[in-house]
Amino acid sequence: MKVNRSEQIESQEVSMEGATGCSVRWLINQTDGAPNFAMRQFVVNPAGHTPKHRHPYEHEVYVLAGNGVVLEGDEEHPIAAGDFVYVGPDEIHQFRNTGSAPLTFLCLVPHIPDGTPVNTVPECEQTADN
Amino acid sequence: MKVNRSEQIESQEVSMEGATGCSVRWLINQTDGAPNFAMRQFVVNPAGHTPKHRHPYEHEVYVLAGNGVVLEGDEEHPIAAGDFVYVGPDEIHQFRNTGSAPLTFLCLVPHIPDGTPVNTVPECEQTADN
Repeated sequence: MKVNRSEQIESQEVSMEGATGCSVRWLINQTDGAPNFAMRQFVVNPAGHTPKHRHPYEHEVYVLAGNGVVLEGDEEHPIAAGDFVYVGPDEIHQFRNTGSAPLTFLCLVPHIPDGTPVNTVPECEQTADN
Repeated sequence: MKVNRSEQIESQEVSMEGATGCSVRWLINQTDGAPNFAMRQFVVNPAGHTPKHRHPYEHEVYVLAGNGVVLEGDEEHPIAAGDFVYVGPDEIHQFRNTGSAPLTFLCLVPHIPDGTPVNTVPECEQTADN
């Protein structure tokens, strides 16, 4: 068993292409013995966002604090504390902070084999119809 | 993609042997297309607790609100909002509300095949050394 405060886990800047103002804590991972999936806590600063991308694995997300939107392709869904989001494999998605406080959420993923493709979608596609 | 408020999901009383004052919402499940694991939100009322038991699958837990303890066998670990808990396969565990407000937490599990054994541990074992 592992019991800890999330603040005790090292926060790492998300350097993935397309990410701005994002950090992540890996709370539960394979190194803890977790056999199937990992628990991560993301913080997205005001005006920040995760990459707009797709990949062949799912996300299970629970919003802890803040306000933002999740993009489903080009469609925006508002999100706030107490909301949850299921992102299926290969769905284009992005999380954006639209508030003035940090947007914090859990994002759980199955253990991802090395070499799994992640395809970033250009931001310009988001406004292609505007 | 599924986006919803957790309060919109039906809350079900936990009727499992050994549970007192517990309810659960299945936020993300196989019926949503989730291929690997499920997200559940538990509420344990003051003085309530989950069963003391073990099973061959893991839990990944994040505490959302309230105060309580998680039992690792007979050892108590305090938990509060912002804490996370990894419970490995076959570890004896129990969540107890020790506060005056509801204890709310997420508990994620891999999809569990029908017939998977869950072994309840008698509460009296908890105080066998007292």
